[in-house]
Amino acid sequence: MVLGEYLPFWNKLTEKQRMLLKEKAREAKFEKGMLVHGGADGCSGLLLVTAGQLRVFMLSDEGRELTLYRLLERDICLFSGPCMVKNIQFDVTVEAEQDSVVSVIPPEVYKTLMEQSAVVSNFTNELMASRFSDVMWLMDQVLNKKMDGRLAAFLLEEGRLNGSSELSITHEQIAHHLGTAREVVTRLLRLFQADHLVKLTRGNVELLSEEGLELLAANSLR
Amino acid sequence: MVLGEYLPFWNKLTEKQRMLLKEKAREAKFEKGMLVHGGADGCSGLLLVTAGQLRVFMLSDEGRELTLYRLLERDICLFSGPCMVKNIQFDVTVEAEQDSVVSVIPPEVYKTLMEQSAVVSNFTNELMASRFSDVMWLMDQVLNKKMDGRLAAFLLEEGRLNGSSELSITHEQIAHHLGTAREVVTRLLRLFQADHLVKLTRGNVELLSEEGLELLAANSLR
Repeated sequence: MVLGEYLPFWNKLTEKQRMLLKEKAREAKFEKGMLVHGGADGCSGLLLVTAGQLRVFMLSDEGRELTLYRLLERDICLFSGPCMVKNIQFDVTVEAEQDSVVSVIPPEVYKTLMEQSAVVSNFTNELMASRFSDVMWLMDQVLNKKMDGRLAAFLLEEGRLNGSSELSITHEQIAHHLGTAREVVTRLLRLFQADHLVKLTRGNVELLSEEGLELLAANSLR
Repeated sequence: MVLGEYLPFWNKLTEKQRMLLKEKAREAKFEKGMLVHGGADGCSGLLLVTAGQLRVFMLSDEGRELTLYRLLERDICLFSGPCMVKNIQFDVTVEAEQDSVVSVIPPEVYKTLMEQSAVVSNFTNELMASRFSDVMWLMDQVLNKKMDGRLAAFLLEEGRLNGSSELSITHEQIAHHLGTAREVVTRLLRLFQADHLVKLTRGNVELLSEEGLELLAANSLR
């Protein structure tokens, strides 16, 4: 595990701080589908993805999910360590979407670094700002875009992430990403199929017309 | 203008840093209804409310508003200075909801302080975390609460902010707070009136039953 390659502030740390990180960070492996961090886990610390793909989502009291963003290699998860920054009053859940390898920096270690180093603290600011921007974009989508357009945009994004137009995903999983009910997804996908935008088979969605889906994603103002 | 009273990190600054703040911060007054910061203004800097009340909202491309949070005396607005933190990729609009007095710290001054001082930078983290928590709460509301419950909660909150059960507010203004259309608000308010929860007069909403509104706010899962 070469932390120096992944942490942009590595060269700005003192030798002592680097030693602390090397000593305390531990590597964890997660199989596809495993829970990496749950609200009830408390404060897991900073997660640094070195391989694979994680999904970060919110879970309502009623069990409804909404995907906030994905973390790919080199991405860092801050909200898995809510105790590290005062005033973080929300929980996110993190699960492995692919087999993943993660470096975990314990919360007290990262907190110490933030207190000692303005560089680490400003990096944390940038990280939080970046996730905040993702969530604000999502808020705009949820408020102002119709669900058909959000579904079309999601399918296109999935195709890009997987590098394939054959998506192995259930209607239930799609509903969790979009924060809606499975029935809504099923109804919309059937409409898409009738318009020859997708082809549905069991547990599978094939994208037939990227152009058509893009048009829908762009023009579905609420 | 006594910055030391309002900035919690004041005592952790060097004499030179305090002088810089005193020299560069300027006081600005805004009458009720005036725009304090708009997306097009670019980077106004850090806003420190010393009197009055500001409303921070997002404005969609289609002109729909959604109130994100309010800033009261002693509150600080970070997102009026998006250039101060890398990766802030969204705009908020800030308007004076009451006659207000604001201390404006220029973005380059605050940025310098964050780079020099881990204390200032960590304060910024906490500030951002606090707003992020507000927005995550709001996202949960938007996704999981029905509009009638959100309207009831909003009316109660307004009553508390104003210390009165007589709200001088139009249906259009309420719609802007909640990110919905005026017609939706009007229809719901009429239903509330039929249930003796409110009394409607021109430009006015009187709250008749706090208990009834609270019940509605608590039980309106989507």
